[in-house]
Amino acid sequence: MPTYRLDLAYDGSGFHGYAKQPDLRTVQQELEEALTRILGSRMLGTVRTTVAGRTDAGVHAVGQVVSFDCPDHLDTDKVSKSLNSLLGPEISVLALVEAEPGFSARKDAITRRYRYQIFNRSVADPFRRHETWHVHHQLNLADMDAAAQLFLGEQDFSAFCRDDEGKSRKRYVLNARWTAVEDLLTFEIEANAFCHQMVRSLVAMCVEVGKGNRTVDDVAEILQNRNRNSAAGTAPPHGLKLVDVSYEGDRWHP
Amino acid sequence: MPTYRLDLAYDGSGFHGYAKQPDLRTVQQELEEALTRILGSRMLGTVRTTVAGRTDAGVHAVGQVVSFDCPDHLDTDKVSKSLNSLLGPEISVLALVEAEPGFSARKDAITRRYRYQIFNRSVADPFRRHETWHVHHQLNLADMDAAAQLFLGEQDFSAFCRDDEGKSRKRYVLNARWTAVEDLLTFEIEANAFCHQMVRSLVAMCVEVGKGNRTVDDVAEILQNRNRNSAAGTAPPHGLKLVDVSYEGDRWHP
Repeated sequence: MPTYRLDLAYDGSGFHGYAKQPDLRTVQQELEEALTRILGSRMLGTVRTTVAGRTDAGVHAVGQVVSFDCPDHLDTDKVSKSLNSLLGPEISVLALVEAEPGFSARKDAITRRYRYQIFNRSVADPFRRHETWHVHHQLNLADMDAAAQLFLGEQDFSAFCRDDEGKSRKRYVLNARWTAVEDLLTFEIEANAFCHQMVRSLVAMCVEVGKGNRTVDDVAEILQNRNRNSAAGTAPPHGLKLVDVSYEGDRWHP
Repeated sequence: MPTYRLDLAYDGSGFHGYAKQPDLRTVQQELEEALTRILGSRMLGTVRTTVAGRTDAGVHAVGQVVSFDCPDHLDTDKVSKSLNSLLGPEISVLALVEAEPGFSARKDAITRRYRYQIFNRSVADPFRRHETWHVHHQLNLADMDAAAQLFLGEQDFSAFCRDDEGKSRKRYVLNARWTAVEDLLTFEIEANAFCHQMVRSLVAMCVEVGKGNRTVDDVAEILQNRNRNSAAGTAPPHGLKLVDVSYEGDRWHP
């Protein structure tokens, strides 16, 4: 049975996250309904998909990866166009290709990369409010970036993850940095995987450091002690995007 | 009585245009309510404002100008902050300054400049849909720009304006050009004033030329004959922004 890889972008504003939930509008449900409508006759029932990163309500994606099996070989151009006309403009299919048999967007992913953006000026910008968190308090970028360096390597991120019934919260972070172009601050972080609300919790912590409410040493201690109660909550979802997912054999993304 | 000049940006998506209308959410109403709330005690009743460009439903602004009179001298920093906290993030105050007595944002305006943006790629981009018109048909920019050159100078734009009970539709266009950066096509047009739906009608006409459905000569003929029925309708509002308004003594905007 051929397996397909689907690359997606979506504006998460109107969705209760990626993963299906009863009676709520989710990306997965819209996608599976569209796939079932297009491929229905060749499938036995509903199309089932597997996703690389289950983004939360309001979180966006510009490089989400989904896999699914189909009994027949597909005309990928045609299916891709049909999907876009059913799903656009909130969800957009960037690519649809036949993958190696048995490919899983989730299990085969080596790393995920997320980007968080903050608009740091006293007055909000009406045109940035869908994709950035507006923080009017002037932030110290150097301190935020120093805090971000503490996240590197394999560590237990219990202080920065929603409690998930005793599952391991050890993750391996390959890259983490804050950069700025004028008033737009960008946090990029790449890891083998992320636990629930991890990026937004790390961002909220960095912002506290940027405001001067916490020091870089405080962050080191909170991380070390795995003390969720000392952390700084979670940054709002609309500043966050799943940027890409890497697989073996992919070109390396700079 | 001192007169004030207020520079505004707003995302027009959630508004039924700038100008007040009964029972509809408009920028003017939100603004006057906020001003009245802040200045109420010093004003006799409601604050009345005058605007440079009455944008239509769904049209945005990054450089709208409004004027109003106030019996007292204001602490402009404080009023500006209060306005932003009441109006943000959809409406944002860029500047508030005391103007020359009797200044009118509408009557004293010398030119208005609008920008229209088209995202010209087969697949929509979920993050551009608030500010660009998605046209999937490949457009010929050189032809569109050739058509735009016909709009220059003083002309009767009856073919490209909504009928407005016999008022003159003669306008003086100083600049009009199409440019592109990758898939993003931008139309900028500056004129002494614009009649109703003029920019969107000109854009719709240019797009017909860009698609090859009409020639540049067709446009010249339609303009000449003032034939609204031969025009191409109006482009959607969300691609349009009022960019700036010039006044005597302003620095010239390139």
